[in-house]
This record gives sequence, C-alpha cells and structure tokens, in this order.
Amino acid sequence: MSLDVFFKPASVAVVGASRRPGTFGHEILRNLRSTYKGRLYAVNPRYNDVLGVRSYPSLSSLPEAPELVVVAVRAEAAVDVVDEAGRVGARGVIVVSGGFAETGPQGERLEGELAGAARRYGVRLVGPNCIGVYDPVSGVDTFFLPRERMPRPPRGYVSLVSQSGAFLTTLMEWASMEGLGVYRAINIGNKADVDEADVISYYTGDDATRAIGVYIEGVKPGAGPRLLEAIQGARRAGKHVVILKGGRTGAGGRATMSHTASLAGDYRVFKDLVEEAGAVMVEDPVHLIDSLKILGMQGHRSPGSGKVLVVTNAGGPGVIAADSLEAEGLQVPPPPRDVAERLRRVLPPIAALGNPVDLTGGASNRDYEIVLKEALDSYDMVLIVAPLQPATVDKGLAWIIAERLHEARKPGATVTLGGSEGAEAAAILESLGVPAYPFPHRAARALASLYKSNQPRCADGGGRELPSRVKEMLDSQPPGKVLDSEALLIVEALGIPVARWCLARSPGEAARCYERLGVGRVAVKAVGRGIIHKTDVGGVMLGVGSPGEAARSYRVLESRLAGSMEGALVQEMVPSGVEAIVGARRDRGFGPIALVGLGGVLVEVLRDYRITRAPTNMCRALQAVKGLRARRLLEGYRGLANSVEDLAGILARASLLALHPRVEELDLNPVILTRQGPVVVDARIILG
Amino acid sequence: MSLDVFFKPASVAVVGASRRPGTFGHEILRNLRSTYKGRLYAVNPRYNDVLGVRSYPSLSSLPEAPELVVVAVRAEAAVDVVDEAGRVGARGVIVVSGGFAETGPQGERLEGELAGAARRYGVRLVGPNCIGVYDPVSGVDTFFLPRERMPRPPRGYVSLVSQSGAFLTTLMEWASMEGLGVYRAINIGNKADVDEADVISYYTGDDATRAIGVYIEGVKPGAGPRLLEAIQGARRAGKHVVILKGGRTGAGGRATMSHTASLAGDYRVFKDLVEEAGAVMVEDPVHLIDSLKILGMQGHRSPGSGKVLVVTNAGGPGVIAADSLEAEGLQVPPPPRDVAERLRRVLPPIAALGNPVDLTGGASNRDYEIVLKEALDSYDMVLIVAPLQPATVDKGLAWIIAERLHEARKPGATVTLGGSEGAEAAAILESLGVPAYPFPHRAARALASLYKSNQPRCADGGGRELPSRVKEMLDSQPPGKVLDSEALLIVEALGIPVARWCLARSPGEAARCYERLGVGRVAVKAVGRGIIHKTDVGGVMLGVGSPGEAARSYRVLESRLAGSMEGALVQEMVPSGVEAIVGARRDRGFGPIALVGLGGVLVEVLRDYRITRAPTNMCRALQAVKGLRARRLLEGYRGLANSVEDLAGILARASLLALHPRVEELDLNPVILTRQGPVVVDARIILG
Repeated sequence: MSLDVFFKPASVAVVGASRRPGTFGHEILRNLRSTYKGRLYAVNPRYNDVLGVRSYPSLSSLPEAPELVVVAVRAEAAVDVVDEAGRVGARGVIVVSGGFAETGPQGERLEGELAGAARRYGVRLVGPNCIGVYDPVSGVDTFFLPRERMPRPPRGYVSLVSQSGAFLTTLMEWASMEGLGVYRAINIGNKADVDEADVISYYTGDDATRAIGVYIEGVKPGAGPRLLEAIQGARRAGKHVVILKGGRTGAGGRATMSHTASLAGDYRVFKDLVEEAGAVMVEDPVHLIDSLKILGMQGHRSPGSGKVLVVTNAGGPGVIAADSLEAEGLQVPPPPRDVAERLRRVLPPIAALGNPVDLTGGASNRDYEIVLKEALDSYDMVLIVAPLQPATVDKGLAWIIAERLHEARKPGATVTLGGSEGAEAAAILESLGVPAYPFPHRAARALASLYKSNQPRCADGGGRELPSRVKEMLDSQPPGKVLDSEALLIVEALGIPVARWCLARSPGEAARCYERLGVGRVAVKAVGRGIIHKTDVGGVMLGVGSPGEAARSYRVLESRLAGSMEGALVQEMVPSGVEAIVGARRDRGFGPIALVGLGGVLVEVLRDYRITRAPTNMCRALQAVKGLRARRLLEGYRGLANSVEDLAGILARASLLALHPRVEELDLNPVILTRQGPVVVDARIILG
Repeated sequence: MSLDVFFKPASVAVVGASRRPGTFGHEILRNLRSTYKGRLYAVNPRYNDVLGVRSYPSLSSLPEAPELVVVAVRAEAAVDVVDEAGRVGARGVIVVSGGFAETGPQGERLEGELAGAARRYGVRLVGPNCIGVYDPVSGVDTFFLPRERMPRPPRGYVSLVSQSGAFLTTLMEWASMEGLGVYRAINIGNKADVDEADVISYYTGDDATRAIGVYIEGVKPGAGPRLLEAIQGARRAGKHVVILKGGRTGAGGRATMSHTASLAGDYRVFKDLVEEAGAVMVEDPVHLIDSLKILGMQGHRSPGSGKVLVVTNAGGPGVIAADSLEAEGLQVPPPPRDVAERLRRVLPPIAALGNPVDLTGGASNRDYEIVLKEALDSYDMVLIVAPLQPATVDKGLAWIIAERLHEARKPGATVTLGGSEGAEAAAILESLGVPAYPFPHRAARALASLYKSNQPRCADGGGRELPSRVKEMLDSQPPGKVLDSEALLIVEALGIPVARWCLARSPGEAARCYERLGVGRVAVKAVGRGIIHKTDVGGVMLGVGSPGEAARSYRVLESRLAGSMEGALVQEMVPSGVEAIVGARRDRGFGPIALVGLGGVLVEVLRDYRITRAPTNMCRALQAVKGLRARRLLEGYRGLANSVEDLAGILARASLLALHPRVEELDLNPVILTRQGPVVVDARIILG
C-alpha cells in the first residue's frame, strides 16, 4: 500500500489542535496552515476555530473523512483517536504523541493497541513518538519547529527517512547549511507500522527522488530481511541508498559459546548486510550529506573503474585531495604519456603534469578547460580543487567544468573557494548539477560513495536448500552442543572437506584408528557434549606418532577429563597453511547470517571478518572473502592457488546450515587453506 | 636567532614593488600599505613612488637599513638582492619569487646561491617560492591575495606554518569560514633556511600562541631530529602542535632487502615519530582546524583519563556524539548510580539518564544546568549537543555551559544549532572560550585531539650507547649482508636472547652440532652472504630429529644452493608462541629509527607496526609495543606474562644497532614470544 496518503493527502485533520503556542497541536497546525495546499481541519471539542482553521469536536463530525489524521493528544487518548480515524475512513494516521514503547512495558502495551486499531481498519500508521512528514510540494509539514529555529533545506533530489526525530530536525538544518537539496523527509519514531523498508520502497517509486538518506538506530526483530529487500529494490530502480547508523558500539556483550556469535555484533551485522544489499554506509552526518549530494546530482553517471583526475591551481589542497582519494580506495594515476605530452605543449611550463595536474597560482580558466578537454577521456571521474583566490581565475570556470563533465558524461566533484567569487562559482556549479564542497577530502569521500554505490551487486540466493540428508542428521540431534564427531559428519555431508578422522571409544580403538588413518602424525582430541572448549581443559594431544602413543594419549585424556569424555577423535595433522574461520548463526534482526574471517589472530584481535546473508551464493561468498583486509594472504600470496574460491565455497555450503531452524551457532574453526586444498579441522554446532 | 624580524620588523622594503596590479610586487605592497604599522619602502629603479609609497632605486639608497626585505623579483635577480640586503644590514629576507629548487637542478643551484648569500651575512631567509608572513598585530601581511578573494580569519590563539603557500591561503579562508582564531601565519616554501623547526620554536616563545598548526609535505634530509626537538620543546612549554602531512602515499617503493625498510614508508615514519615527540597528527584540514580550535581555547585544561559526559536535548545527534567519542578511544560511561539518582529526583521523568544524558525535546536551560552541576564531577570532559531548535531552550544556555566548565576547570566542546538562536549561542560560547562545532562527530574528534595532546610523553634517550664490543664486531664486517651466524652473535652481544644454535661447515659438523645442542628437533638453515631470502631458495630444513638427519639435511641444502652456501646453522626449534618482528634502519629525514610489529601476517598484510626514534628507551619502547593494534595478543592473552616488557626490551636493545653509522638495515624476524620468554630466531643485518 502506497504511502501517498502521508506525503500528498487530499485532506488533513489535526486532532489535538491547540491555541497554546509551543504545544505540538499548535505548532503543527501553524505550519500546515501556512504550507499545506489541501483541505485542513482542526479537531478540538473546546474551540470553534484554532489559528483561523475551523475546529470540530471529533473526527466523526468532520464534513468528510480526512485522508490523513495527525494525532497530537496524550498517549492514553491516542488509541481511541486512531480507532475513530479508522471508523470514519481515514487512510493514514501520524501519531506524534510520545509515551509509548520508548517508556517501558506499559507504553509498549499501549503501542500494541495503537497498532492493532490501525491494522483493524487497514489504516497506515506513522509513529508513534515522531514528528512526521515534510513534503514541500504538497505542503505537508508536521514538524513542530518554526522555520527560524529549524531552517528548511532547499528543494532537491534527496529524500530522507529517520528513526529519530531529533536527528531528522538537525539533519534538515545541516542540509540547509550545506546546501543539500531535499525532496521529502519522514520521521518514523517507534515504527509501530511504517518502517524504513516501507519508506525506502515508497521513495523508490518517486520520480523526483534519486538518492535516499537513512538514519537508523535499531532493526526490529525479524525486520532485517525486508530492509535488505527494499535496498535491493531501490538499487534495481537506479536509486541510491545511504545509511548512517546510530549506536555503533551498542549493547553487545551477549554471552555466547561460539566465536561467530560474539563477533557478529549488531553494528557489523547491519553494516555488512546493508552494504551487501547495495547501500552505502557512512560514519558521520557530514559523510551522509556529502554522499547524498553527489548521488542526487550525479549518481546516474558511471564511476567506471574509479580512476580519478585531480586538477588544481593550489598545490597543497590538491595533494590533500589525492591523498584522500587513495585513502578511499580510488585510483589517482598520472596522465598517460601522450596526454601529458599534449598538455606540455599547450600549458604554461610551470604546470606540474602529475595527478594532481597542478596549474599553480597563475592558472587561468582556459588552462582548466585545456586539461579537461585533453585528459578527461583517460579518466573515470574528476575532482577539481580550484580556490578562486588568484585574480587569474574566476567563476566563469564553473560553466566550463559543468559543460565538460556533461559532455563526457563523467561524474565530478569540485572545491571552489576564493571568498565571494568562490561562493558564486559553487552556486553556479550546483545549479548545473555539479556538487561543490568546501574541503577537498569531503569531495574525495563523496566520489568514493558514488563509486561504491554503483558497484555491481550479487543477485540473491541461487535457490539452494539444505540437503535433506543433512536436515535429517540435524533433526535427530538433541539440543545443545553436537558431539564433535557428529558435527564433522554433518559438515562432510554438506560436501565440505574435513581433515581425516576416526572416532575412538577406548585406548585400543585409538590405536586402531591411528593405524586406519595411516598418516605419520595425528592429533587425539577428547569429545563430549559437555566439553565446550577442548583446548582450555587440556583435551587435545598433538603430534601423536604411533598406535601405542595414540592409546596412551587416550588414557591421558580420560584421566584429565574424568566423566565428561565420551570418546576421542584421532585426526590427521593438517600441513601448515592459512587459517580461516567460517561460521553461521541466526540474528534477531536479520535472520540467518554467515561469517568468514582469516587467521585466528586476525579475526579475534583485529576483527577482520565479513558477514553475509545466509544462505549465500558463490558471488556473495567471493565478495565477502575479497572484502577481508587480510585477503592478500590468499591472493596468490605464498602460492595458495584457488584459496579464495575454496574458502568462498566452504562459506556458501556452511551458510546452508543456518537455514535449519534449530541451528543456533556454527563454527568451522579452523579451516586450513593448504597447498593441497582447504580442510576443516574442527566443527562446532549448537542446536536449539 | 629569533624570527621576530619576520613578524614584527621595524621597517620593511619591498624589492620589485610594481604599479601593475596582479604582480606580486604590487599586491604585496598594496597589502602592506594598508596594514603594516612600521616604516615601509618600495624599491624599484623605474619609479619615484608605487601606490603612494616612496620608491628607491636600490636597497643601498634607502634612508636606513630595512630590517626586513621582501624580494619579489625574478629568480635570477633574487640572489643579488639578498646579497645587497646582507650588505646594507638587513636582518631578514622573504624571497617570494619562484623558479628555484622546485623547477629542477638549475633552480636548485640558484637556491644554493641564495641561501649562501643569506648565510654569508647572517641574514635569515624565508622561502624562496613562498607567500611569506601574516601578522595582524604588526600588520606584516605579504600574502599577495586581496581580502575579498582570501578572507582573513579572526584573531585568536593559533599560529600556523605551512610548507605550501596554496595550502596556507586556503587554510586562512577555511579558518575564517570555521571561525578559527589565528594569531600568526607563515609559509616557508622551499625552506632554504627557515624551516618548520625554526617556526615551531619561535611560536613556542609567543605568549599569545597556544596551539601551532603545521602543514608539511616533506622533511629535508637530516632535518627530522630538529623538527622532533622543536615539537618536544613546544610541549614542554605547554604549547600544542597539530600536524597535517600532505603526500601520504608518497613515492615509496624503494627496493629494499629487509622488511623494516619497506614497511617504514615515509608517512608512517613521520607520523609515528612526531606523535612520539608529542604532536597530534590529523588526516584532513577540518580535523586540523577543529583540533586547533579546542587546543587554542582549552588546551590548558586537563582531559584526565578521557571520561566524557554527553548531554543533549536531541537523541539522535547525542548518539552520534557518543559513537564518535568511543570510535576515538574515549570513554563514555553512564553516570554513577548516586548521580543518576540525584538527577532522577530533579529532572523531568522523560529524561534518559545514560550517556548521553538525553533531556529530550522539552529540555530547558535549567535542566542542562542541573546535569552539569550534578554530574560534572564524575567526568573529565563534556560534550554538549544542544540544537536550540525547541523554544524551551535558548542562547542563555551558552553562559551556563561556559560558567560550569570554567568553575570545574574541565574541557568541553559544544554543538549548538537552531537557526539564528544556535548561531548566537555558538558565538557567545566561543567568546567565552568554549569551542562550538556544527557537527557532533567534529566536536568528538576535537576532544580526542585535546586528550591526545595532553598525554604524558616519554623523555628522550636514557644515554645508552652501542656497547664497544658490538661496535668492534660490526667494524670488522665487510659491507653487504652479514653472515647469519655473525648476525646472531652480534644480537647476542647486545644481550638479546637467541634460539640456541651451532654453525656447521660440513655434514659431519651438522651432525655434531645436533648432538651438541642436545634438543629433540632442530632446523638446519643454509647460511651465505649471497643468500638473502633463505626460505625462497629452499634453504631451510625443519623438524630434523637425529644427527644423521642433520648431516643429510646439510647435504640436501648443499645440492640445492650449490656455490652460495658457506655453511649451515643448526638451530633448536622454538616452541610455538606469538611472532614479532623488530627492526631498525636509517631514515633519510629522521636518522636512526627502530620498528616493532606483531606476527608476520599482521605486520606484512595489515601493516600493524610502530616506529620509534632510535636509540629508544624502555618508556618509548613500551609505548610503541602498546600502540600496536594487536597488543591484545600480548596483554595476558594466551598467558604470555611479561611479553610486552620482553618485546619492548628487545626493541630498546636492538635500536642501539642503528647508532652504528654502517648499519643500514636490521631485522630480527621472527622474535618468538613464548611462555618461557622471548627468543630471536633469525637476524639479518645489512651494512653500508
């Protein structure tokens, strides 16, 4: 169901309209009265009119069913109002009032009733505990802050959705400070009904929205998949989604039994999954604004392979630009030899023809034009750092830049300073669709966001299911930790290679296992449902080299672990290689997820791992592996051919386990990538 | 010699004064004429006056010896002018002209002559290729950009020095945009004489300068130590130094034979050493400005142990502030229970008493005052995020915040938005010495800079010298790679523990070595001056377990390495532990440096290592080790008691080697930190 009713309703009623300045019901009506173009009603039994708007005793007494009802009464009364709105045939309600789930269990119950009332009548609900909607075209503006205290931004191609009202109002002011053009905005508060996914999908259908800015603090249980699908839908429609998440460090600290669970903290899960779906994650509001600005203006232009030309008349700031671009992972190569030679012939000899092309303080508009004409073909994007401080350059440069970028159909960003001359140039550039930033590193970060947002994304799924044999094996297990040997069997059944092993139930069996494996040296490891961390309790003997030693090792383990040992794995010692970890678990917000990391140390100490939505396909698994900072360890380094693909394959297969509703946690740790291929040495599965 | 002559000369002569607008000689004279308060002369044989300033044919014909001479003639003529300035008794020259070292070998020669002329007469020289000096008190302003194209910042407590002229002029405009108060500024261009160290030392003596901002692109050969000493001097005097370095990725890529040399790229060496000396490194100009602003206003207030209280009336922006503080390594703990209880009694029930303390949209100035009064004692710093958008708060809050911070003598930063109300509050706050930022993450980063700049620094040296026995051992070695066995002897002579070894010159000796070591398993490693990377050429046999095997291994190595093998080390296999690398080398800019990193993978792939000035003492060595991202590996993790101290001790001892003038590179790789203590397994020394 469309959210049109919130952004362009034919009629609006404000319930709780008030004559008292400072109250929600007063400020909202005051804003709507001066901006809203449709039919506006006040509802308050105490007055005949409020602020010159005719007031009615109740929704039922209005001359028509209002399409949108804005509810600004106290929480306890709001449920009845929503119920009445439904009865009279309203299609949407915005509940501004606070006092719901944010206040504790009683408010939570009230919020449930509110949502229930809306659902009963098929009315969409925004809020509660929100400031609602801003749409300067229809004039719906339920923000209860006057313009002098909260400047409204200029019109543009960006639409916003924020969980926090205070964040949205400050973002509106920041946007007006930074000249970010905004088309629509909504604050969804407690998200009793309408959530980010709904709004992103709605904005995706907006012709005028090109980039969607999202501020989110938390994902409700189970709401993650819809959010990811909304992001994917937006990207398919060519819209860009930029997300800032508040509460990065979050609660965390849930006691868990596996690495995967403790590693996959809320922020990392969120970030990796929304990026995988196609959103750009940013870390601060400036980054949000800068990214939205360039995506709104130039998001449709291809960033190619990310080769950026920097042109400047100011050496130092040009160097900062190049540094920042490289720090963001973009390329800043010098011009090809033939281009440099052509430029050398026509530019003043003082110009430095690297990247940046530094035209120095004596540069003219014409010098810039020459560089753009000659060099643009060799690059994918342009960053122009042109403080118009010297008198030899002026705002005419703005038209030159815009024209060249437009002809070349390449994205670009600019920095123009130089007092009023620079400010005028910036205004001209932005009116021509070229973003202007006050600092070179901000322009560089914006280009990086444009590059990221336009990277190809992997398709979903691939239709794979958990093999029925594996499902049966899992079904037959009791809850808790699966016995190591059983876990290895399950992993093998998924087609994942496991280091050769043999289960012994006695010292004699351990000796026979040794002979059966027929390898030089083995490990003997205690197994038992109660043994969670084998190594910590002295449950592992390494480098065992004969049947007799295997039997002796078994006895040693028995004496150490007393009653908790149910047997021992006799397992071949895997040749050295690169250690990896693959895991999976069920996330409260996003459902099944999988994780991959390299090297125990890297994963645990440096938190170098990636999370992907489970089940993952090879495309996404490869992306996750290649996203590791330590990927160089695999890419040919130390001669491990195909190890990227091998590890991705194990990730994809292991991620299927998360589909089983009883699998709570899975760790394959370590997976060892050897020259002879990958092998899992240890598997831990926790069942619910 | 003081740089007073550049900042407050009694008289100034402009050589090359011109009537033609746009020329350096015109614009500089025009600026000086309107701002400079001393005696001003023009020098140009073609005119009797320029811009109303009396003009003389030469410096010799002036009625007095000008203290400062500004040279704005072409490069070829500049040497003679400096010579004449020296002869007539000028004390300082600013050579604005370009065309020197920046243009190639011929210009470099010319620059040498320029510096020579200045030196001959004891005249200090700023430039060439610079825009000189800005001092609004004396009125010296040799920047040749008019005010309308390059707005000048307000007066303040910050002084600037920049290698790049274009960076400094844009920084001046940024400072004026961001309201950063500037006291003095200088652009030193090619640094033929006056360099960053001179200027930092000079600013250190300024009463009015509290924070020094530096933009630097490169350190001249050998100039590093003076820079470090200038920074240390500034910190001792209570001044703060903030540095932005341009050219982060730089040329790099020098072909080297050791890890240390290839890892210690210019940017990392620079960053680690200036931070060790006490400077704050920043990565972009906004970070530079924000850090300088708070250090100029509040740098003298102690940041304690970095516990920050966030107070806000805007949930979302408050959350961003807390996230940013934590990302910067500061602490954001909730208020102690008793404080929370006191607040609960007096604040409106809707207030959320975590950190942030969120007073919500209905907050009043008085609520803020209550929180600051009750909670400030429990924290070291404050970040107030107060968009004055709701009518319940107003700019009166500014006085409350400033007074509370002042009384508590605690540093704080603020974000006040809310249209003109917010802007007025920001202006009041800054007039009262409390910095106001437009974004919460910028305020958070600024507090982090204040925290970093006030951390205690280690003292220099400790007076240790290279032991004479080690010096003799090095002296007796031929140039090139020292034979592995000799290198191990040198390392042992430094008092660094080495894995037990024995040098064999034949298979028979290898067998005897095995017996002599009397350990279970050994490695047999080929040694030879020509063998740089043993492993790559198959020069290492591991796990050798008997005298016969040792002899056979020796023969295998001989057959693989043919003529280049001079013998083999038979060495005990070290029990597993945490791998580290310790190195040292001579840096072109900074002289002897040492390096420490953890785990081969971490150092090589993730570039997790720290550089320290050699010789380093235990305090600085400990700081370097604790600065590793992977430090958690050592801090009790896996039960390695004292390993931080052990590794720091090896770093301190090894760093002594860099004192020997012939030592070009040293690698101890790996150093293995075991439960039984640290041991070096392999040492590589390259001599010049």
